[in-house]
Amino acid sequence: ERISHLSPETAELGLYDHYMQKEIAEQPRALTDTVEPILARGFTPDLFGVGAQACFSGVRNVLLLACGTSYHAALVACYWVEAIARMPCRAEIASEYRYRTSVPDPETLVITISQSGETADTLAALKHAQSLGMHHSLAICNVPESSLVRQSTLSFLTRAGMEIGVASTKAFTTQLVALFALAVTLAKTRQVLTEGAEAAYFDALRRLPNKVQHVLNLEPQLRLWAERFCRKQHALFLGRGAHYPIALEGSLKLKEISYIHAEAYAAGELKHGPLALVDAEMPVVAVAPNDDLLEKLKSNLQEVRARGGELYVLADNDSHFSPSEGIHVIRLPDHEGILSPVVHVVPLQLLAYHTACLRGADVDKPRNLAKSVTVE
Amino acid sequence: ERISHLSPETAELGLYDHYMQKEIAEQPRALTDTVEPILARGFTPDLFGVGAQACFSGVRNVLLLACGTSYHAALVACYWVEAIARMPCRAEIASEYRYRTSVPDPETLVITISQSGETADTLAALKHAQSLGMHHSLAICNVPESSLVRQSTLSFLTRAGMEIGVASTKAFTTQLVALFALAVTLAKTRQVLTEGAEAAYFDALRRLPNKVQHVLNLEPQLRLWAERFCRKQHALFLGRGAHYPIALEGSLKLKEISYIHAEAYAAGELKHGPLALVDAEMPVVAVAPNDDLLEKLKSNLQEVRARGGELYVLADNDSHFSPSEGIHVIRLPDHEGILSPVVHVVPLQLLAYHTACLRGADVDKPRNLAKSVTVE
Repeated sequence: ERISHLSPETAELGLYDHYMQKEIAEQPRALTDTVEPILARGFTPDLFGVGAQACFSGVRNVLLLACGTSYHAALVACYWVEAIARMPCRAEIASEYRYRTSVPDPETLVITISQSGETADTLAALKHAQSLGMHHSLAICNVPESSLVRQSTLSFLTRAGMEIGVASTKAFTTQLVALFALAVTLAKTRQVLTEGAEAAYFDALRRLPNKVQHVLNLEPQLRLWAERFCRKQHALFLGRGAHYPIALEGSLKLKEISYIHAEAYAAGELKHGPLALVDAEMPVVAVAPNDDLLEKLKSNLQEVRARGGELYVLADNDSHFSPSEGIHVIRLPDHEGILSPVVHVVPLQLLAYHTACLRGADVDKPRNLAKSVTVE
Repeated sequence: ERISHLSPETAELGLYDHYMQKEIAEQPRALTDTVEPILARGFTPDLFGVGAQACFSGVRNVLLLACGTSYHAALVACYWVEAIARMPCRAEIASEYRYRTSVPDPETLVITISQSGETADTLAALKHAQSLGMHHSLAICNVPESSLVRQSTLSFLTRAGMEIGVASTKAFTTQLVALFALAVTLAKTRQVLTEGAEAAYFDALRRLPNKVQHVLNLEPQLRLWAERFCRKQHALFLGRGAHYPIALEGSLKLKEISYIHAEAYAAGELKHGPLALVDAEMPVVAVAPNDDLLEKLKSNLQEVRARGGELYVLADNDSHFSPSEGIHVIRLPDHEGILSPVVHVVPLQLLAYHTACLRGADVDKPRNLAKSVTVE
């Protein structure tokens, strides 16, 4: 249906200083465009191509293969697929999967994720899975005519539009939407979805672009955080559950463009080692949605605070998290429920962007990195 | 059979400066003791307790639950279980597994790993799995009378002896031996093990303590590396395949006791982000066994070198890796094959130990950490 989004106007910076800044700001539009066919047609296998109904009915497991930022989307999807579709799901780094001896199951849906659809490791991992007899494949991709789409039986095209900044932003959030729609559609096909849940997920998708717009309005507060971060050499990002991959993505963004050594941990792992690193020089960013894990996370954060660590908490408005000595809080809108990871990654993108700008880094072309990694 | 190893003499430092140093040096003895029942009885389910034969015949999948260093052992085991026993296997961080909505399968062998057997998150994760109807459980533990052993139907006791240093060393390598024996025993029970392979694995286990002793003899070279590391604030550890968890473990050791911000990556992920961090101030440690992945790893290392990164390569003797400008090489013995991860972790323990000593850190009691994390 649609062909490539490489229209000349999308490549213009307009009022923005960098493509990354423009692409972060475009996310409400990119999300609106990506959810549009879902809102128009509902959670139907047809969204994923011809034959998806038969494929989704025939598979028992899900395997996600990706690299870098797309791998973080895969990790979030694992939580969604298991919780919503009740199917065993695992995510693997494409370059690792490809070279290990694995146990293939032909009843597996192999999902690959790549903005460009040309990521060499991901394409090779897909071919490897196919060579092992796994023929149910679905590509989530931003470029229609890409190798990954052509190599897969099914596909979902994100409508992020051309992404020029090396650090992926709108491609990531639209990938998440595609993966969420997939989890719900799998659930529906397998008849484990109540009508009430379906309606709630539909509403959540419809609300999402606006929610993201609200978070973008917090940019001035994140720029203030960036003024503190730009003098640091380290940072730790913490999250739990489906927000652990969001912490990973926030740390990767900061690494990629500001060259600050940021690292993410599942918050429960803190006391099994990385807590030793925490001191006044190591800012700790906590992705703290108002979900079931908030109380656990708060106790992890107390450990950090007790060791003199400076905390930067991204909290939901309804969690009533208050700033205090050494604890900086930015309040996002009310908790978004299952789509909260999409909402929570946006402030981390803004934090990385402004930190990199203040450090004078070349935001759109970070040193040593290429946009599409088409070599192994 | 055996009761606790808490005899007074094991608690004495003797000639050593720290318990951690003593415990690293004790590994040939700890491994000899741990492999002894395996060498005496062969790869029999009896090693794991009463009813293991029926349990191993009845399960279809393996789920490993652990925290910290034990989680790294679980990650190595995933490679072994899938490659040797041909069973689908996944490792999860205990604190993450416990709180997410997962898809339970009663035909799963749930393996927990903990030195003390009192790790609160791991124990809670096991109970959670059991509450979901997964009743095949096996604890790999260093303390016989521990909560984890009592909560599990099967167990394997490592014979590391009492471990006092907070940073786990001999507990880790003996856990690996236990997990390897388990993978081979599962393969045998499921009749996917050739006699030739069984004999080769048996020989590999028998050789292992000596191999580790040879690596310990490289201590002076690692101390020289430590003299360079002790002035750094960052380090990157790279590995591929079953040596990626070894890179994770090496970076955790350095973090825990030297407070250097070390981080590990699967080497194939380098160009998807962390390569941006690489400069002359970021030493890069490569776990580079002489296996099928060596050529791929070498190309990753060239990327590091091209960006001015200083490389520290742990190579096998038979790979003929040569030092050159900016590339430091320590040669381990000839490639050990499938047990190579056990061999390769030892130099990383020594590197962390000597780096921490040179920085004047309290090696046995690193700041902020406890030996057994008995709270969530």
